[in-house]
Amino acid sequence: MRMYDIIAKKRDGGTLTREELAFAVNGYVAGDVPDYQMSALLMAIYLRGMTDAETAELTDVMARSGDMVDLSAIQGIKVDKHSTGGVGDKTTLVIAPIVAACDVKIAKMSGRGLGHTGGTIDKMEAVPGTRTSLTQEEFFKQVNEIGISVIGQSGHIAVADKKMYALRDVTATVGCIPLIASSIMSKKLAAGSDAILLDVTMGDGAFMKDLESAVELARQMVAIGTAHGRKVAAMITDMDKPLGRNIGNSLEVAESMAVLRGNGPEDLTEVCLQLATNMLMLAGKGGESECRAMAKQVIADGSAFETCCKMFAAQGGDISVLQDASKFQKAKYSYELTAPQTGYICKNDVEKIGNASVLLGAGRITKEDTIDFAAGITMHKKLGDYVKAGESICTFYADEEALFAAAEEMYRSGLVIGPEKPALPPLIYARVTADGVEQLNVN
Amino acid sequence: MRMYDIIAKKRDGGTLTREELAFAVNGYVAGDVPDYQMSALLMAIYLRGMTDAETAELTDVMARSGDMVDLSAIQGIKVDKHSTGGVGDKTTLVIAPIVAACDVKIAKMSGRGLGHTGGTIDKMEAVPGTRTSLTQEEFFKQVNEIGISVIGQSGHIAVADKKMYALRDVTATVGCIPLIASSIMSKKLAAGSDAILLDVTMGDGAFMKDLESAVELARQMVAIGTAHGRKVAAMITDMDKPLGRNIGNSLEVAESMAVLRGNGPEDLTEVCLQLATNMLMLAGKGGESECRAMAKQVIADGSAFETCCKMFAAQGGDISVLQDASKFQKAKYSYELTAPQTGYICKNDVEKIGNASVLLGAGRITKEDTIDFAAGITMHKKLGDYVKAGESICTFYADEEALFAAAEEMYRSGLVIGPEKPALPPLIYARVTADGVEQLNVN
Repeated sequence: MRMYDIIAKKRDGGTLTREELAFAVNGYVAGDVPDYQMSALLMAIYLRGMTDAETAELTDVMARSGDMVDLSAIQGIKVDKHSTGGVGDKTTLVIAPIVAACDVKIAKMSGRGLGHTGGTIDKMEAVPGTRTSLTQEEFFKQVNEIGISVIGQSGHIAVADKKMYALRDVTATVGCIPLIASSIMSKKLAAGSDAILLDVTMGDGAFMKDLESAVELARQMVAIGTAHGRKVAAMITDMDKPLGRNIGNSLEVAESMAVLRGNGPEDLTEVCLQLATNMLMLAGKGGESECRAMAKQVIADGSAFETCCKMFAAQGGDISVLQDASKFQKAKYSYELTAPQTGYICKNDVEKIGNASVLLGAGRITKEDTIDFAAGITMHKKLGDYVKAGESICTFYADEEALFAAAEEMYRSGLVIGPEKPALPPLIYARVTADGVEQLNVN
Repeated sequence: MRMYDIIAKKRDGGTLTREELAFAVNGYVAGDVPDYQMSALLMAIYLRGMTDAETAELTDVMARSGDMVDLSAIQGIKVDKHSTGGVGDKTTLVIAPIVAACDVKIAKMSGRGLGHTGGTIDKMEAVPGTRTSLTQEEFFKQVNEIGISVIGQSGHIAVADKKMYALRDVTATVGCIPLIASSIMSKKLAAGSDAILLDVTMGDGAFMKDLESAVELARQMVAIGTAHGRKVAAMITDMDKPLGRNIGNSLEVAESMAVLRGNGPEDLTEVCLQLATNMLMLAGKGGESECRAMAKQVIADGSAFETCCKMFAAQGGDISVLQDASKFQKAKYSYELTAPQTGYICKNDVEKIGNASVLLGAGRITKEDTIDFAAGITMHKKLGDYVKAGESICTFYADEEALFAAAEEMYRSGLVIGPEKPALPPLIYARVTADGVEQLNVN
């Protein structure tokens, strides 16, 4: 078998076999297939596509390129969740404790933020003392004892994906649905949970810019998981505006705790309830209305928040900041960004909001950058809101005053205020399962 | 400007600007653009194509990546010729002397053979003592004095093409018409002749497998040359069988000299007359019938053969082998490959014939291989010929008897003998000029 022939076959629109995909991927990981051949293959895949069967095989090969986590030492059904990324997307910190409080195990690995999107692990580390790197023994023990643990993804999971993603990132082959689907699902399959809820974000601030692509990505990921014997569903959620009002690590933790205590922002609360409900359904806890009632109940009776505190405490975190957000270390400086005119916020580019928060110190441009946990943005006016000239649209937080100018320029470059209230997209567009697509249009 | 954006633009079917093409190509030559980005771009070009204007710009950028030869020190019109490659294709050795004997200057650079196709420079070196590497001064002086010199292509011509071709060769991006056209024409433009005749071979043994692709390649190359102020025409010639009967370096020189002396094989003679006629037309020597008469005349009166001898002598070659082919050093061993049954030769795969000759020692698999000038094949029966069981189809020549078995297996694997005479393709299909395509169908 020769890599040349594999590239040529895909170039001509052929369907690669399991053996051919394994030859390419494993050869690439081993260093036998050079970067320039893999990038030619990736571009051919980008432009020629892959069948569902091919994508499922590729995913399996990538999953097996690293450790396959065996969660059988943890009793009960384990449910995982993945979001394709967003700005101000703190749902994991809310829904994982809700689901665990309903007696479904969460043994989850999460990632860090990069570019304009944040990551759960960074947010957890904003809680002083929290360890996100546990031994497998500690991890299993904690899940068995308190039902939940969220840790950083091990470097040995889906090794091929890591190397291929780095190459895609510099060869303009990231935005290809079968490659996105296999990248995400290879990690989820390797992580070992029985059921997986996918949150496919859609809109300006997300990979998927339209409903058709978002549904197709969801459909492919559900198909892959199902082909591998996992229970999988996907929710298509909006990313035309950030979820909630806070962007930045400790700011987002505070907002998540507010939701868990029943007094969070409406949009974030609703999306979290929907996602938690669907995770409970996947775990076999009942029908939709039953599961939604369960999720609301554990918020109302305080057990979801309590579960969250137990998880952080078990991982060494100082839970006083969860109980009282004012105990978080504050940013040294704040700055009010004001409206230049009166009107409705007609556009508020999510990617630019995310980039502004990165410029304030809340995120990373390269993997090596350090994060200022206190930095970030609190939005007072969001897409569709009415604002008066001179009124504050949002507050910036940073450790250096000098950072505000560039962040403001970034934020303002995506902001349009006009005389008419814009039409607002729904919070959740659709649910995709192995049975098909269901339009939801939840507002 | 970023290479990433250039790749993404072509990936999405965009048209690259001169500046973008120059950034990519010059960056690649300088080592600033890595292999893996160039291979992604090449695959995107392969699958998305290029406009004629893009291809012309790319060609110009590639031509200017190395030396641009200035032939103005040579008086008169200089005509070049290029073949897209074939098996037993020895036309340059015949037509260059014919054209020079008609007072048109030939200051030509040629290549070496690789894989199943041969190269003019190897054939010239089969004549003992011949130097194919001259200084520019020697080269110009010889053309001014005797009207003709053929030398090896300098390593400084179209430097980008060399590096890009090596990458295309291992990333399955060779067979793309705009890339083939720009690769060939970048070298031809840099080589400096006023007029260029292109011999686009078509058939099993050639890059172009069908008339439509061959015409398209010809059309693109003519358009590029014309856009750069050169006079260009292309002949689409058949490569469903080798030209003449001999494959192998000294064998092909002997056959070429036979044509120059008026007693060569009919097919080779006709193709050479057609090509020479068209080169003379490009050089402004008259209409088609006039130019054809001129070409026949210089064969008949011996001046073409004399010009050829003068060229070899000027470059240090021992012309006694040209005058008497029996003076060539003979191969140590020969072997008759016989017909397994009686019937017509219905198929005789040209690429396999070429590969068989390489296995006998007549060609190279890698650039580092050395060539046995005496090795090769003389075909007694070609496509369409009738053969009796046990009769010799061809004679193999090699320096070691052990080489015959593998060469025979290769040759026989492409050979089919059947009861019915197959339809034979024409020798020359069409002529392509800036004015359009002319069907010729010369037999």
